[in-house]
Amino acid sequence: MEQITGIRKMQQHCATLRAQGEKIGFVPTMGHFHEGHLSLVKRSKKECSATIVSIFVNPMQFAPHEDFDRYPRDINRDKKLLKQLGVEVLFTPKTGQIYPEPFLTSVFVDEITTIGEGVSRPKHFQGVTTIVAKLLNIVQPAVMYLGQKDIQQAVILKKMIHDLNIPVSVRLCPTIREKDGLAMSSRNIYLSSKERQSAPALITTLRTAEKMVESGEKDCKKITKKMEAVFDRFPKAKLDYILCADYKSFKPVSKVNSRTIIALAAYAGDIRLIDNIIVSPP
Amino acid sequence: MEQITGIRKMQQHCATLRAQGEKIGFVPTMGHFHEGHLSLVKRSKKECSATIVSIFVNPMQFAPHEDFDRYPRDINRDKKLLKQLGVEVLFTPKTGQIYPEPFLTSVFVDEITTIGEGVSRPKHFQGVTTIVAKLLNIVQPAVMYLGQKDIQQAVILKKMIHDLNIPVSVRLCPTIREKDGLAMSSRNIYLSSKERQSAPALITTLRTAEKMVESGEKDCKKITKKMEAVFDRFPKAKLDYILCADYKSFKPVSKVNSRTIIALAAYAGDIRLIDNIIVSPP
Repeated sequence: MEQITGIRKMQQHCATLRAQGEKIGFVPTMGHFHEGHLSLVKRSKKECSATIVSIFVNPMQFAPHEDFDRYPRDINRDKKLLKQLGVEVLFTPKTGQIYPEPFLTSVFVDEITTIGEGVSRPKHFQGVTTIVAKLLNIVQPAVMYLGQKDIQQAVILKKMIHDLNIPVSVRLCPTIREKDGLAMSSRNIYLSSKERQSAPALITTLRTAEKMVESGEKDCKKITKKMEAVFDRFPKAKLDYILCADYKSFKPVSKVNSRTIIALAAYAGDIRLIDNIIVSPP
Repeated sequence: MEQITGIRKMQQHCATLRAQGEKIGFVPTMGHFHEGHLSLVKRSKKECSATIVSIFVNPMQFAPHEDFDRYPRDINRDKKLLKQLGVEVLFTPKTGQIYPEPFLTSVFVDEITTIGEGVSRPKHFQGVTTIVAKLLNIVQPAVMYLGQKDIQQAVILKKMIHDLNIPVSVRLCPTIREKDGLAMSSRNIYLSSKERQSAPALITTLRTAEKMVESGEKDCKKITKKMEAVFDRFPKAKLDYILCADYKSFKPVSKVNSRTIIALAAYAGDIRLIDNIIVSPP
């Protein structure tokens, strides 16, 4: 596996791959891999002839009070895992090269960035859309792989790609879960053993919603109310929001329609957790 | 010459050109060509193996009170001129396809968009950067040709391209002028014959600055003061601003350094005119 740090070198490498007719699959990450990341890599390896993974802990998507400095990093372990999967190229750009001073440009998606995660993280998605626009311009892949766990991020990036006519397809891959249903996340290592015990509150609550939809319930108010009641059984976890939204537009909906996202965020101690499911009426 | 309206068709056409090893030169315009536009096209024809010209009067870069509706359009004349120059493809996308509802994404460059033209046209450059980002994603040219007349626009677009790692080179081409020195602009046809008489105020004023720099003056305050005095001799024209700025960063400067932009904007009647020169100490 080749590790490339320079942006220009990465652009040239990708241009060569494309000129050779390779289909580039791209997995943008912040590293510290879990099975969720690896599932994206595996899917790319299956569907594309060249897989490029990037690791870049993007300062622009962290607020000053957030966990940029202590965000978990383990590049050596990550490299081993990528090698085992036969990844061709790992792209690890340097912050100074990604954001040379003065960095003045941003890519912004309106409306769907100010609800859900956008309420407690107001500048977060602007950081995400800007870095992904940059990475897509550098790698110019045929396909980009994203995880369903960060569903709002995925919908926003798909919207950016559509609005800006970026020539890339997006594959959304299922959330990978621990045995007790907790969605895998690099931030799960922050959880103390006590907090970890209350973390299944999220999937338990979502499964309640799933069952209600399966048995014919479409009213999002009723579903949300029941979800809140179920969540309350986990006194150590604190609910932030529950959101029912259209799969494509991420507009909040009052009735479950074909492909509705039910997303929630909660705190276990200080640790913010998010999860979601996509449901359809039976 | 082929005229393409559909975005997808344009993307496919350009992908084919690139796969065939063609070097694509791109000239984005709002149509109603004058010699300035044609000089960009000629330069592209000279330097690239395939030239694509777009005509799109971009509503996003006009404020509600501005001249979007009456902006001059003459597609048949434009097509004849492009054919004469041997242009391969004219791209004329439709507004509904460029901005499908709901259009939520914008590309924004900070700081250098809020001075100069940005003062009286606060959302203008955001409209420009967003449409050019889109057009670059559709056409993916090797080179884009821009005119020096809109120097601030050119610096902002170069900054966007640099910050977002868009793989395209930019060529800035000299301003083309009428016999009396008025910079060519599609909007010049708005000028009444009286207003037209006072329009050389801009170039006369700029030439004063040029001479001062040539004779060793570097102090931008002194240069500006003298320029204002010269401009005052044209009572029918009204000065909006004079700006001395660094060529690369567009940061205002107090001393003329190597490659300093001296730009100004003025009104002849209601018609806004802009012009600029690039100067260097002798």
